[in-house]
This record gives sequence, structure tokens and C-alpha cells, in this order.
Amino acid sequence: MSNTFGNILRLTTFGESHGIAIGGVLDGMPAGVAIDMDEVQRVVDRRRPGQSAMTTSRSEDDRVEILSGVFDGVTLGTPIGFVIRNKDHHSADYSEIKECYRPSHADYTYDAKYGIRDYRGGGRSSARETAARVVGGAIAMQALKQLGITVTAYTSQIGTVLLDASKKVDLSNIDSNTVRCPDADTAALMEAEVMAARAAGDSLGGCVSCVVNGVPAGLGEPVFGKLHAQLGAAMLGINAAKGFEYGDGFAFAGARGSEVMDRFTSCDGTVTTLDNHSGGIQGGISNGAPITFRVAFKPVATLMRDIETIDRNGNPVTLHPHGRHDPCVVPRAVPIVEAMAALVMLDNVLMARTSRL
Amino acid sequence: MSNTFGNILRLTTFGESHGIAIGGVLDGMPAGVAIDMDEVQRVVDRRRPGQSAMTTSRSEDDRVEILSGVFDGVTLGTPIGFVIRNKDHHSADYSEIKECYRPSHADYTYDAKYGIRDYRGGGRSSARETAARVVGGAIAMQALKQLGITVTAYTSQIGTVLLDASKKVDLSNIDSNTVRCPDADTAALMEAEVMAARAAGDSLGGCVSCVVNGVPAGLGEPVFGKLHAQLGAAMLGINAAKGFEYGDGFAFAGARGSEVMDRFTSCDGTVTTLDNHSGGIQGGISNGAPITFRVAFKPVATLMRDIETIDRNGNPVTLHPHGRHDPCVVPRAVPIVEAMAALVMLDNVLMARTSRL
Amino acid sequence: MSNTFGNILRLTTFGESHGIAIGGVLDGMPAGVAIDMDEVQRVVDRRRPGQSAMTTSRSEDDRVEILSGVFDGVTLGTPIGFVIRNKDHHSADYSEIKECYRPSHADYTYDAKYGIRDYRGGGRSSARETAARVVGGAIAMQALKQLGITVTAYTSQIGTVLLDASKKVDLSNIDSNTVRCPDADTAALMEAEVMAARAAGDSLGGCVSCVVNGVPAGLGEPVFGKLHAQLGAAMLGINAAKGFEYGDGFAFAGARGSEVMDRFTSCDGTVTTLDNHSGGIQGGISNGAPITFRVAFKPVATLMRDIETIDRNGNPVTLHPHGRHDPCVVPRAVPIVEAMAALVMLDNVLMARTSRL
Amino acid sequence: MSNTFGNILRLTTFGESHGIAIGGVLDGMPAGVAIDMDEVQRVVDRRRPGQSAMTTSRSEDDRVEILSGVFDGVTLGTPIGFVIRNKDHHSADYSEIKECYRPSHADYTYDAKYGIRDYRGGGRSSARETAARVVGGAIAMQALKQLGITVTAYTSQIGTVLLDASKKVDLSNIDSNTVRCPDADTAALMEAEVMAARAAGDSLGGCVSCVVNGVPAGLGEPVFGKLHAQLGAAMLGINAAKGFEYGDGFAFAGARGSEVMDRFTSCDGTVTTLDNHSGGIQGGISNGAPITFRVAFKPVATLMRDIETIDRNGNPVTLHPHGRHDPCVVPRAVPIVEAMAALVMLDNVLMARTSRL
Repeated sequence: MSNTFGNILRLTTFGESHGIAIGGVLDGMPAGVAIDMDEVQRVVDRRRPGQSAMTTSRSEDDRVEILSGVFDGVTLGTPIGFVIRNKDHHSADYSEIKECYRPSHADYTYDAKYGIRDYRGGGRSSARETAARVVGGAIAMQALKQLGITVTAYTSQIGTVLLDASKKVDLSNIDSNTVRCPDADTAALMEAEVMAARAAGDSLGGCVSCVVNGVPAGLGEPVFGKLHAQLGAAMLGINAAKGFEYGDGFAFAGARGSEVMDRFTSCDGTVTTLDNHSGGIQGGISNGAPITFRVAFKPVATLMRDIETIDRNGNPVTLHPHGRHDPCVVPRAVPIVEAMAALVMLDNVLMARTSRL
Repeated sequence: MSNTFGNILRLTTFGESHGIAIGGVLDGMPAGVAIDMDEVQRVVDRRRPGQSAMTTSRSEDDRVEILSGVFDGVTLGTPIGFVIRNKDHHSADYSEIKECYRPSHADYTYDAKYGIRDYRGGGRSSARETAARVVGGAIAMQALKQLGITVTAYTSQIGTVLLDASKKVDLSNIDSNTVRCPDADTAALMEAEVMAARAAGDSLGGCVSCVVNGVPAGLGEPVFGKLHAQLGAAMLGINAAKGFEYGDGFAFAGARGSEVMDRFTSCDGTVTTLDNHSGGIQGGISNGAPITFRVAFKPVATLMRDIETIDRNGNPVTLHPHGRHDPCVVPRAVPIVEAMAALVMLDNVLMARTSRL
Repeated sequence: MSNTFGNILRLTTFGESHGIAIGGVLDGMPAGVAIDMDEVQRVVDRRRPGQSAMTTSRSEDDRVEILSGVFDGVTLGTPIGFVIRNKDHHSADYSEIKECYRPSHADYTYDAKYGIRDYRGGGRSSARETAARVVGGAIAMQALKQLGITVTAYTSQIGTVLLDASKKVDLSNIDSNTVRCPDADTAALMEAEVMAARAAGDSLGGCVSCVVNGVPAGLGEPVFGKLHAQLGAAMLGINAAKGFEYGDGFAFAGARGSEVMDRFTSCDGTVTTLDNHSGGIQGGISNGAPITFRVAFKPVATLMRDIETIDRNGNPVTLHPHGRHDPCVVPRAVPIVEAMAALVMLDNVLMARTSRL
Repeated sequence: MSNTFGNILRLTTFGESHGIAIGGVLDGMPAGVAIDMDEVQRVVDRRRPGQSAMTTSRSEDDRVEILSGVFDGVTLGTPIGFVIRNKDHHSADYSEIKECYRPSHADYTYDAKYGIRDYRGGGRSSARETAARVVGGAIAMQALKQLGITVTAYTSQIGTVLLDASKKVDLSNIDSNTVRCPDADTAALMEAEVMAARAAGDSLGGCVSCVVNGVPAGLGEPVFGKLHAQLGAAMLGINAAKGFEYGDGFAFAGARGSEVMDRFTSCDGTVTTLDNHSGGIQGGISNGAPITFRVAFKPVATLMRDIETIDRNGNPVTLHPHGRHDPCVVPRAVPIVEAMAALVMLDNVLMARTSRL
């Protein structure tokens, strides 16, 4: 439940933001997969803050240590345990919030649930936990790659700047700018939007889009375990995620059926669709077309301005945020979206092997 | 997985659209809850087609039979098994589609996954399966009611007609019109939109909004089991659902942090928020404010026009749909959304009892 | 948990002994398996009471009705729902025990857990529930058969009469006597033992042994999901089961390592063992040898004599059991043991498909 | 599944015997429990080899490092991640077995399942993995203690030496001898048995008995999740476990019902039983009496003699075991049995909170 994700392939994560370490266990990973650990580290580095002037300069130096499950560079089929030590403890920085409930943060709700919380840097509710998901996802990705499945996410909206969905983009350009938008012109506008928000001590939300290519038809489970329901749960579990849609998504609501039909065609015995409004999933099961979805993120709750709020006793207090915080975390969410999607896809590849005798 | 939903409270459903029966097992239901069976039937009837000129006139007569788990009107704590017999078998009606893949339906993907499918009325992929969810949800709802928690859904968009979100609505009006929109003026426009689509042999999508009131703070699990991730998975598992958002949802993407902060206040030791952009959930855990979310549905894939498609062998065929079909299923999705939300909420009420020693 | 068994192949059961029906849902059954329903019914009939003078004469007439998941005699991959109506309601017979706690029954513990119980015939705690397991197991068995795996159980002990383990037995003789012991001489002694107990108004315990043939090497999961741990949980979940051992079992405790080594040999690239002390499982994973295990059952708690006990208020009462009860249920446990073993084996066949990329 | 144990309280372990580390994640641990880390370490030390002349002298120095979930000595409700570094890598020692299948070990079955194995010291199949279970169990134990529940295991058989079950023993004496038998005379006989086996280069099996006191009535789930089925699965998942029985266990098989009835009595509204043949569990649910069970272990498969076996290619080879190995691991199994029992008990305490509204 809570801290475990997946059915056959299952990632369990642990760790508070400013505790000793974060980490996880990836169980159910098939045996015999060669793992490129440098590639895993590279993927984790993509999530790290401090990658540009645009993001926070905290140096997390997230060094992944694999503790088990990989032997001579190949998966054993046994659980892959891993840790990332927390090096950047500045507990003193957090004394101000120890007794306070920051608005739109999880301070109050953790207290309400557990009667106790690690107030340092958000504790378990910090997005730092997602580094463990990225490790798991990066390992899953290497297995998917061998199966010809690729997962690619990119920033499609920051604040009021949207990537025109009809624009043809080159996904190899995603990391060529700090906002991870594959279109250079849009990226420049997004960067300006972020700079303006930063200057105002404000923050921005946005959207990440994702496409999964090379998916065979037949993945996903009917009824409750629909492939898009699994993807949705995966994405909505990411910090600050507020919405999920796949294929035409919310635009379907305003459409007529005749406009959004995915027409079938067949060539040499292979069934394909001429359209992809469905986002590659019909009845919860992949149809072989690219899987496409979009995730909405809210603006970071920490602003670089004084914030009026209350403490645990209900007394009003004023917080004076300091240090450096991302005004927009959407670009850093890109590798997290990819990681969670990779976990879902590999899990369903494995599950699909059991659907026929 | 697939056909089971929930953690402590778990609903398993079974049944094909035109098989002998559909039904389910609700396990983990706490003992000692008085169940009003007439109320359960009434809720199931809300999902049924044939309720108005607007919806299909198939008379399903979904009579719920409880087989176990309730004794002298009170839950035993043992699994509640139930069935709804399928009375409306017109297998002959479906001979045309036996060998065909209807566009934007699940015919092809079921074949791709299982190598076999019950082609009669969509088989397992039919929305008829959701009647079993409504039974489970209606039982859960009665427990929630005793705890002061209510779940209310309504139609907030059909095609191009949107309910103005800023409009104050009276939720007691939801069933006063055929589209289940609580605002009479908007409902009239929606009804016209449906009539126009029907006249054109076309279909319409739309949105259902839902609000959960009376939720104590502290429900939901951190990380993967966030309350909204559970709700999202529940909603995306409903047939034809294409998107989910909670609180301000996708609108967050275009907002600045300073505009969407939920300010805390305290009165007599009770912490509340002055705003509710978060939709009652922060860090995946309820904060005591009403939980609000919205689900997008695509237009029904079956149109009342000739459809070009292919058969299993890849040969082009033309389908001539007949019978009566809903041009818009959104109003019927309302009780399904409520049912799935009720299951999630009660499951989390039970789970929350284990968060402290 | 509670009422669901298995991982990929999962059986959920429901039903109280004297409610409307018992039944279940078998989910995760692979598609494309031809199901012989007469064979399923035949297996269920083996569990039924009233098969001989030795067993209770209650005529349960357990007619299985499959409601879904099988189409034209072939599994669809969708959940198989089924019910068995309870025809033999004699609620009046149970008025005596309504307020009482029968010794060594579950009356008191159900009350302690749920605060309510269906007192009629033991309610959910009745062995009648196992009929649903037999249905699920009988379906799984048909898939196993196609894979060359067979599961065979038989009575190896009743009271003080033990089947000599060193005796070569012909498993085709199991149903040739009322105690289901494959050795005719031992069976005769067992039958006499049962008759004597019956005459004394007493009851008897015993053991069921089981052998699974045709198992490929490599089934089972390391650590917590060891194949024998899954089998053990399955067997200990059967009513009245009090012990489980596999291979040499408890005899291992008194042995020296040098006496119980399973020596490997190889022929044409196939690894086998010359001995089978391990019962076909090493490190929790099948090694290709026959899987052997044994289950101990306690004597039925209902005796045909007056019983001193207490009621819900702690007052002493004397119960006067009447009707007809099996003095020994071990022979009827044979098909239940087979059913649970079949579920475990097929589940692990499916799971094993995911252990390598 | 495989590497995760439990429902609400869930332990996931990872690690190969001679990899970098073993460890685990304990999820679902209730918040607010003060954890005495010295006590956790002390319990882990009980499992460690090298504690007496009788056991192997490998110095494992299992230092537990808690990485998360505990803050200022108190549980947070978040997952408790922990690691134990492997310090004793002598990979060179294992070159002989790299290509061989040791009889009655898991070398062959891991190869059959995964096509690859970590041959160093048994890899994942080594009992070293159980150190992680002991950490999880030791933490659970501290919560149980606050609830008045204690779990105590001891050695009741080694080879041909059995502790007389009718003998009154003082459980505080368990650690007063190297075999962990609470009766001094029996312990002396057991120690002699171990010495004799060691001198012969042979090994011994045995039994561990366990008693759980202070259990409230009402814990455990009906049907598949019976409390003893959960305990059985837990125990059978321990390395080298071959059998499990609770209460009178296999002795029930030979008994008459009239001899093994647990008579109820009541005093001041509290229901208790005058006997405890049932081992504290009736119908799968605790009845308030002490829970008693027994686990059989096979002799260690590694003997201090030459062993004839085969290699991966089927060629005969002779192994020459060296180093020091326990001739009998039963005493070291005692804390593992306690740990697994503690996990089951706390999980069921939490689950029981959801059985009534």
C-alpha cells in the first residue's frame, strides 16, 4: 500500500528528507538483465536540484549505492536494495517551522494522521523521496529498452506558457534547455516565465507530457487495473501532482463521438489505428499505439516572501522563508514521471505473460 | 489487482454483460452496520439505463440479491456476496460484431490480451460491470453515513455546456433533471445538447464533479497511496474515464503559488483552511476540508451511424449499429463516481485506525 | 487477505453455512482453458457430506452454477464467478446454540472479533465454505492437467490407524473405500475405527497426505513466498487443520544431516535427485521431484453426547447435540487439500513466468 | 509476495549473503512507539553465529543501522529502512561451489528459476537474510510489549533429545545455555548431542517451540487468513523449516474428540478455557489463551565431510567443505521464530481494529 508500488514488479521506498538516508527495494525485477549503473546514476542526477540557475542550488549529490540483487552487473531476480545518503543536513534551517503549519504543505496533515512528524525539510512528504523512485524506474527502464519500449517525458506547460500540442517536436531536444521543453522557442518563453516568478518571490505550476513507444497490444488489466488507472495512480502519487489525463483527456469531455473515433486499419495482419485520441489504451488495455498522457503540477508551496500562518497551538505566526527554492519544479518532475511510467509498464509486461495458459 | 479494488475494504467484481449474471464480493466490511437494502437497490437503479427519454430504453431491471455477509439486516464482518442476474440477453443482436473490431471499443485489445473474448455486448468491458461497483459503494456509503461522511457527485459538463464553477448550486437538485446537473438552467442546456447529438446519431462526452463532506483530517497514505491517487485510480477505472483532477486540478498548472495558497486558521483548537484550492488533500492526506474532484468522460464510442472498421482478419467491414444507445452516459456515471469514492473513503477510514499505536 | 487466496491466481470466497448461498470468484485464471463443468461438479461432490454411512446424511446437493468467465466452455481470462445455493436450511435446529459457545468451535472467537455472528450451523466458520474452494481448485486443476501437473491427496491416518509410509500404494484406489485410503487393508482398519468412534458418540482426527507430480523445477519464491510456505498457509487455512509438514517434515528434527541428503544426479542434461527427503522443494523452490506433504486434522468438535459449556452471559448450559454429524471429516478433507494445492501450484506456474526477462 | 511479509505491517527484506549489505523496510509500523535501539541490536545479536563453541565462529558483527522512520527515538509512522553491512566477504572460499550444486541446498533450484545465482555463501538463500527479519521483529516486539503481548521461543528438540512437554519450565532460563532450552538437564543432553554430531562431521535437526502470551481474543481472520495459517506461513518461510503445528498439532490426528475439547468457563464476564489443546486459536481467531506452536527444522545441509554431487554440466564432483559451520542451527532459529511471530501478532492487532465500525 502506502510505500510500496506495483504488483509483480514492486518498488518500496523509505526515507525522510533530512534523515540519514533515503532508499528503496525493487522486488520482482526479472533475472538476467544487464544493468548499466552509470546510466542509473545519470537518470538520478536529472532529478537533482542545482542543475541550473533556475533551480535551487542545494547540492544534494545523490550518490546511489546498490546493495543487493545485482551480481557482476546483471540482475539476480532477487530484490534490489539501494540507498542514497542524505548529506545536506541543515537542521538548524528548519527550526522556524518546527511548530508551524506551512500553508499548502503537508505539515498539518502528517500531524493529524500520525501525531508526530519529522519537521526537517518536510520529512517524508519532501519530494526528495522521489529520488528513490527514479532509481527504481531507471532500472526498470533498462529492461524495457531491451524489449523495445521507451518512455519519454517533457515539460509541456509552465504557468501561462503552453507548448502547442499540434507542433511537431524533436524529443531529443528535451535536455537542451533548463525547462526540459523540446521546442526551443517555447522553452525560451518558459524560462522567462520562471525568471519573472523568481524575481517576484513567487512560484509556478505546469504540466509534464509523456509518451511511451514500442508498447505491444495487450498490456493492462480490465476493470480496476486498467493500464491508464495504474498510470494515473502512479502520476498522482508524485508530489504536487493535481491532475492526470491520457489521450485527448479532458478535451474528450467537450467532443462529439464522431470527432474522436480511432479508426482501425490492418496491414499484413497487423492491426493499427489511424488516429490516437485514445492515447494508446482502449478498455484499459494497450492497443499498440503510443501511450500518451499529461500530468498537472501545482506551483511550489514555498514562496520567497513572508507567509502568515498558524502554529500547532493555533497561534498566528509569520514565516520568513530563506535559502533557495525552485520557483518551478516541473522540469525536475520530468524524470520522475518517466520513472513511474517505466515501473508501470514493466509491471504490466510481466503481468501480461499470465493472461493465457 | 485486476478485478479487486481496495486494501482493507475490498470489492471484487465478476460478470460479462450478456453472461448469466454480474456480481461481486465486498470483503473487509466492518461488522455491525445496519444495511438498508431498499436504499442499496435505489442507488443501483440510479445507474440503470432506461430512466428517461434521454437514455437507452433497454430494461435491465437490475435486481440485487445479497447472498451472504448480512444477517438480520446487519453486517457480519464476513464477505458480502451479491449477484445481479442478466435478464436482457439478445445475443442475436450481436452477431454482426462477433468477428469485428468496433473503433474506440475494447474488442481488439481484449482479443490481443486473451486471444478470446465474449463479443456479446462488450462482455467484460461493458459498463454493465459497474452495477456491481454501485452495489459495493452503496453498502460502504451506509457505513460512511453513520460516520458523518457524505459523497455527492453531479454532472458538471456535457459536450460544450459547462456548469459555471463559481455558481452556487443546491446539491439536493441533482436528481431533479435527467442530466443530473444541480443547476436547472445549465441542465436545460445540457438536455438540449444531448437531444441534438441524438438527432445527429452522434454522442457526447462530459465531466462529473464530486464533493466529499465530513471527512476528518488524517485520512490517506503518504507516497504511493495518497488519498487523491487512490481516488484517481478509482475514477480512471470507470469505463470511458479519460481524466481526473482534484481541487484546482489542471488550473493549478497555469497559476502562481501566491494565488493558490490555502491559508490556515484556527478556532477553539480546530485547524481549518480559509481556502480550498487543494481540494481537501495536502501531501496525500485529508485536511478536514471538503474533498473535491472532477472526472472527464469521453463520448460513447457507439454511434447511430454506419461505421467503417475491420474484422479479425483485417478485412474492411461496415457496421450498422441499431437498437437504442445512450448518446451521453455522463449522467449515469454519477452514481458510479459516488460508489467508487465511497469505497475509497471507507477503506481509508479503516486504514487510518492503524496509523498510531 | 481474509477471504482471498493467491497472488496472480486469486480465489475469493463468500457465504455462511445457512445463508442464501456460498460462492466465490476465481480471478487471474488464464484465458483459453477448456473447462469440463461435469468434472468440476464431480470434484465438488467428493467433498459433499452424505456419501456413505460413515458421513453425515445431510443432503447438501451442492449444485455449482458458473456465472461468468467461461464462454462456450472456455475460460475468458475474466473472473469466474460461481454460486452454490444453500438448500438445507433448518434454522430451527440451531436455536439451542444461538446464545451458547460450543467448546472447540469458533462461536466465541467470532463474537469476540465481530460482536455478532451467524449462529446457524457455524455461519462463516462452517466447513461448508470449503465447497467454494473446491470449485476454484477444480478449475485450476484442469489447467494444471494440460501442463502435465497432477495433484493427488489421500487419507494417511485416522485416529490410531496409520498408513505405513513405506508401503507402496496405488493412488488409483483412493476412492475405492469410504475413508479415501489407497491401501485396502489400512482402509478397513480406518473404517472400523470410525465406526467405533461413532458408536461411542465420539469423533476422530487424522492426516491427509498429498503428492504433486509433474512439477517443473523453478516454481516458488524465495524468502517469505517459499513454495512450501504457500502450501502450508493453504492447508492450515482449511477448517480443523492443526499441522503441516512437507518431505520428511517433523522426522527431520530427529535425523542427522548425513541420513537425509538428497543426492543429485544428471542424465542427458536433466538434473534429478536420487532421494526426496526434501519433498520436492529446496530453498522454497521446486526441484522437479514430486512434492509431498501431510496435513493433520483435529477430531470434529461436535460430539453426539451432552456437552457442558457456557452461554454469552457466562452461565453454564448443557448442549444436547442431535442430527447427524461426521465422526471423522478427514476423508472429506481430501478433495479440499487437493483443491488448495492446485490453486497454489497454478499460481506459482504463472508467477514463474516472470522470473526472467 | 516473495520478499514482503504482512498485510498492514509489512516487512520487505533484501540482500545476498556476501553482497554489500542485507537490510529491509518495515512499513505500516504505527507512529508514536518509542524504540530502544540497543534492545533491537541485542535481539539481532542473539541470531548471530559465533556465540559459543557450539556455533560457527564466523564473526558477522551484524551492526544494524536504522536509516529512516524513527525520529528522536520514536516511530514516525513512515517506513523504517535499515541496513546491516556484510563485513565478512571471503569470496575466495566459495570458488569450489561456483559451478556445483550442493545436495539439499538451493543452488540448483535458484539456477532453475533464475538462470543465474550469487553462488557466494548461498546468496539470497542463505540464512543470513533472516537477520533482517529479526530487526523487523524486534521493532514489532517493542510495540507488542506496550500492549502487554510477549513472544517467547525456545529449543524443544535437538536430534533425538526432546524436551518433555509435560515438564514445567522456567522461560527465563532460555539463554542460560548454548542450545536455548529452558530445562537445564535437557539442555545438557542436547549440548552433548551437538558435540557428538560435530565430532562426526555431521549435523542435526530439531524443533523450536513458541508461546505468545497476553493475546486478546478476536485476533486473526476467518477462512484463508486464519491466525495459525499466518503463523504457519511465517514459520515455514524460515530457512530449513520443514513442519509447523499449533496447539496439540499432529497429536490431534491420533486423538478422540472427547479427549481434546477446550472447556469454556467464565469469571466476572471474562470467558476463558480450562484447557488449551487448540493452542489459543479457534476458527482461526485467538480466544485469549496463550498461543502455542512448534516448528521443525531439518539438519544443516553442509556437512564437514566430502560430498559427492554434480556440477552445472551434470558432471560428478566431490566437494570438500571447510571453514566452520554450525552442526545445528536450531538454537539460532529461536530469535527468528520470535521475530516472525511478533510481526504476525502486531499485524493482526492492527487488522483487528477494522473488524467493527
